[in-house]
Amino acid sequence: MVTSNPDVPTAAILVIGDEILSGRTKDKNIGYIADYLGALGIDLKEVRIVPDEEAEIVAGLNALRNRYMYVFTTGGIGPTHDDITADSVAKAFGVPIDYDPRAVAILKERLGARGIEINEARMRMARVPKGAELVDNKVSGAPGFKMGNVIVMAGVPSIMQVMLDAAAPLLKTGVKMESVSVRADLREGDLGTELAEVARSHPRVMIGSYPFFDEKIGPNTNIVIRSRDSKALAAAKTAVEGMIGSVKEKMK
Amino acid sequence: MVTSNPDVPTAAILVIGDEILSGRTKDKNIGYIADYLGALGIDLKEVRIVPDEEAEIVAGLNALRNRYMYVFTTGGIGPTHDDITADSVAKAFGVPIDYDPRAVAILKERLGARGIEINEARMRMARVPKGAELVDNKVSGAPGFKMGNVIVMAGVPSIMQVMLDAAAPLLKTGVKMESVSVRADLREGDLGTELAEVARSHPRVMIGSYPFFDEKIGPNTNIVIRSRDSKALAAAKTAVEGMIGSVKEKMK
Repeated sequence: MVTSNPDVPTAAILVIGDEILSGRTKDKNIGYIADYLGALGIDLKEVRIVPDEEAEIVAGLNALRNRYMYVFTTGGIGPTHDDITADSVAKAFGVPIDYDPRAVAILKERLGARGIEINEARMRMARVPKGAELVDNKVSGAPGFKMGNVIVMAGVPSIMQVMLDAAAPLLKTGVKMESVSVRADLREGDLGTELAEVARSHPRVMIGSYPFFDEKIGPNTNIVIRSRDSKALAAAKTAVEGMIGSVKEKMK
Repeated sequence: MVTSNPDVPTAAILVIGDEILSGRTKDKNIGYIADYLGALGIDLKEVRIVPDEEAEIVAGLNALRNRYMYVFTTGGIGPTHDDITADSVAKAFGVPIDYDPRAVAILKERLGARGIEINEARMRMARVPKGAELVDNKVSGAPGFKMGNVIVMAGVPSIMQVMLDAAAPLLKTGVKMESVSVRADLREGDLGTELAEVARSHPRVMIGSYPFFDEKIGPNTNIVIRSRDSKALAAAKTAVEGMIGSVKEKMK
C-alpha cells in the first residue's frame, strides 16, 4: 500500500440524480472523469451518487470538499424544478445565490442568437453562488461554475465533457500515474499467494489483480502495476513476470 | 418531494475497487443493481465508490449500513492480496473472521470437480465473518455472504448477478415504484416554469425532467413521473400532458 502523498492532487465525484439511482439512466460520466483525472495526475479517491434532495447534496458536498482537493459534481443544473444543485452548493458554502450578470449575458446572447425565448425557467440556469467562477459550456451555453474547490458540471455527458475541458486549466495537476498490465495466462487463484509476496516487497507500487474470461484458455488474470515512480514500476514488472514464470514452472 | 415512507425498503451500494476509481474498469454493476432493486420495490438511495483500503471500506460500510435497510457491496472478494472486503466487513461489525466450514466444503467440491489445486490463495475465498449467511455463486463456486444487513458480492458482473439472484429471497421487498414517461416535443427550458407548478400540485408523485437530443426535432425532453400510487400517477400524467398542450398552444 502506498501511503497518501501530499503532493498528489486528490479528487472526488458527486453524481446528483434520481435518474441514476432509479436505474432509468446509466451513468456515463464517472468512468470518463476517472480517465480524465488520471491523465492529469489527479487521484480520484471517492465517488458518491445522491438523489435530487438538498440535504443529501449538501451533506455529500461538505463531506467530500473538506477531504479532497477537488470535488466534481454532475447533474442538476438545468432549467427545471428538480435542478437544485446550484442552490445546494450555495447552502453548503453558506453564501447567497443570485442571477449572475456574466451568466445572464451568456444566456441572452446564446438563446437570442438561436431565437429561443428567455423565460423564468431558462433564467434559473444563470443563478450562481456568490464568489463562483463560471465554467464555459461550448455545447449549449448555460455555464457550470467553480465554487471554492467544487466544480459544478452538467449531467448530460456531451456537456459535462466540454465543461471538464474548460475547468481543467483551473486545476493543480500532478505527476501522471503510470501503469503496466501483465497478462498472466494463469487463474487468479494460481498466483494469489506469490503475488502477495511481490506486492509486499514492492511498497512503492500498487499491484491489482483482475480476473477475466479468456475465449481461448478460459479463466485468466491481468496483473496491473501502478506507480508514479518509473524505476519502481519497472522493477515490480520484472518481479511479477519472474513470479509468473516460476508459478508456471511449478505447475508443470 | 415525497417524504420517506418507513414501509419502503431502502438500500445503498458500496463499490469497492481501485480499478473503478482509476478508470481502468468501467463499472457495470451500479445500473444493473439499480434496475434490480427497483423491480423488487426497494429504493436505492445512495452509492459510494471507495478504494481497496480497509479504513475507507469500514467507514463507508458503517455510514451506509446504519442508515439504509440494506447495503450491497461489489468487489474485493477474490483470492489475491488486494481482496480485503471480507476482513473489512468483519472489522466494521466487530466480529472475528475465519475459514467457514460451509464455504470450505463448497470450494473443495467445486475446485476438486474441475481438477484445480486448492491452495492458500484460493482458501482466502472461504474466509467469512462470524455470523454471516453464505450467498450462493452458481458461476464460480466461491460464495458471497450476508452479514447483518450487508450483502457482499463479487465485482465481476456475471458473478455479481447470480449472487444478487441468490440474495433476493432474503430481502424484504416493497411495492414496486411505477413510472411513466411523457415525451414533450419541447425543449426543457420551454416548460420548466409550468412543470414546477404541476410538481407542486402533485406531491404524491416524483417528477423528473430529462433533456435529450432528438435526431428529428433537435433538443427534446422526457418528463418521467414516478409513484407507488397508481391513481396519483395517472392524475399527474394527465396534468403533465395538459400542461404540455397549453405550452405548445402559447408558443404558436
